Amino acid sequence: MGGEVLALSGGVGGAKLSLGLDRVLPAGALHVLANTADDFEHLGLTICPDIDTLLYTLSGRANREQGWGLEGESWNAMQALEALGGETWFRLGDRDLATHLWRSTRLAAGECLSQVTAGLAQRLGLRSHVLPMSETPVRTLVDTDEGELPFQHYFVRRRCEPAVRGFRFAGLDAAQPPPALRELLASPALEKIVICPSNPFVSVDPILQTGELWRALRDAPAPVVAVSPIVAGLALKGPAAKMMAELQIPATALGVAAHYAQAYPGLIDYFVIDSSDATLSTGIDQLGLRSIVADTIMTTTNDKERLARYCLALEGV
Amino acid sequence: MGGEVLALSGGVGGAKLSLGLDRVLPAGALHVLANTADDFEHLGLTICPDIDTLLYTLSGRANREQGWGLEGESWNAMQALEALGGETWFRLGDRDLATHLWRSTRLAAGECLSQVTAGLAQRLGLRSHVLPMSETPVRTLVDTDEGELPFQHYFVRRRCEPAVRGFRFAGLDAAQPPPALRELLASPALEKIVICPSNPFVSVDPILQTGELWRALRDAPAPVVAVSPIVAGLALKGPAAKMMAELQIPATALGVAAHYAQAYPGLIDYFVIDSSDATLSTGIDQLGLRSIVADTIMTTTNDKERLARYCLALEGV
Repeated sequence: MGGEVLALSGGVGGAKLSLGLDRVLPAGALHVLANTADDFEHLGLTICPDIDTLLYTLSGRANREQGWGLEGESWNAMQALEALGGETWFRLGDRDLATHLWRSTRLAAGECLSQVTAGLAQRLGLRSHVLPMSETPVRTLVDTDEGELPFQHYFVRRRCEPAVRGFRFAGLDAAQPPPALRELLASPALEKIVICPSNPFVSVDPILQTGELWRALRDAPAPVVAVSPIVAGLALKGPAAKMMAELQIPATALGVAAHYAQAYPGLIDYFVIDSSDATLSTGIDQLGLRSIVADTIMTTTNDKERLARYCLALEGV
Repeated sequence: MGGEVLALSGGVGGAKLSLGLDRVLPAGALHVLANTADDFEHLGLTICPDIDTLLYTLSGRANREQGWGLEGESWNAMQALEALGGETWFRLGDRDLATHLWRSTRLAAGECLSQVTAGLAQRLGLRSHVLPMSETPVRTLVDTDEGELPFQHYFVRRRCEPAVRGFRFAGLDAAQPPPALRELLASPALEKIVICPSNPFVSVDPILQTGELWRALRDAPAPVVAVSPIVAGLALKGPAAKMMAELQIPATALGVAAHYAQAYPGLIDYFVIDSSDATLSTGIDQLGLRSIVADTIMTTTNDKERLARYCLALEGV
């Protein structure tokens, strides 16, 4: 090892494997490309939930029980905003607010999202790189039985209750991955590409579709390893399984593999599923992906590091 | 009494007399026209220091020792912002941040500053009205021996250290008082106009010059009572005395009276000075203002109410 690794990640689930990779790789070797299609403008601030979950997780500041936000957070601003009758459905802690104020100020001053994110990563003392999937805004719109909803309205405000019919990524046509990513893809030092166990539809799809990134990943010499976010028919975190049922896709690791195989032919070399899903191996292999069975449930830091090592050990095909 | 009263106010000193007026007048009778030339855009938020000092003071939430901000405030967002190397020279408490987030959101949604301010006043339970002097931005620029500085940079960041040569109010040409003020001035119910003991140059001047408001006040039938912010050659709060010395104006109540008499001829009917400045009466009378001697130092609520009653008792001339 010693080479560079690219991980594609959404929020919580992806951040767990990213943390494992961060811990087992040399400082600076990991580049996490974060979904930004969940980002939104709220209370005048630019909020990037997946980038922040990654920054907080990789810097050891994440609230582990809650799954988002900062450990030891206080909520005085939200309480005061509630007393004013302001919008408090998206909970912003006092310290978390500082991140959004800092980011919004820098963006307003003309910095691009890559620079702002790198600045935050540096100040938080990260040993890995975090990159936004796009400098320009891409925003997921969820087509539901109640009409089209901006992602955070669907996800947080409506707690994923409306039934999903599909997704649209506004701004995708104009979006391009940041130059640093293009450089990494062109570098012979890139040894592995890991698609973290994030939501395929609202976290991974927008990343892969930004500037048709998936074609560049497919053509890169480094093998692409994807880890299933669905284990034993359940999403370990978030609405992936519920979404798949509503989209008439089997809510299994095989369903995820089929989605990737169909949407991004030739992209994925290895598809890692949990030991509890070992019976799905044959079906996955028949899709042209190589199924790999491993313990993918990441509870402890040890679990995260072990799965990271496992993914990194898979050789080029 | 029972009629309407208009008070012109900056921050702390003006808010004290405004509170006295608020306490002795029937609910709804007091209209405080607040200076907005101290307002600024900071961390992506629109911050209105004088409006907020008035809102917090009149709703009983002000931090009395500090002279600004909220009682019992916490500072977690600022601490986190400091850790990020963000701009923390303008201290924003966690609960105070909610006010700025609420305001900025409403302004971004297209509400005008009057509506936003009235909304805050209503939610904070005020019994008086607070109006911004202008719906559109007016921004004080301070000409100093170190060049021109935006007001809050001079006032907070540089702690009023640079020597002042003059002031410029950017945006003044396009600014107009809000329609509610025009209505009040046209109403026969308006019984008194009080110029609070605020800084003449950076708090009262911008208000009086917005849309040449001073001419409308001069022509209104209600008497205009001004209270000197300078007592015994000292500004009770803020840099007024230091500014006057730097501007080569005697830093006395007489100096303030002369400034008003010259800049706004015929405007002021009564000029209230502190008992310790009684010897200045003759000079003030010679300027064509009627000097009134009273105890103007407002420490307790009682002091504020007494001075308020005193101002309200002065009859039309």
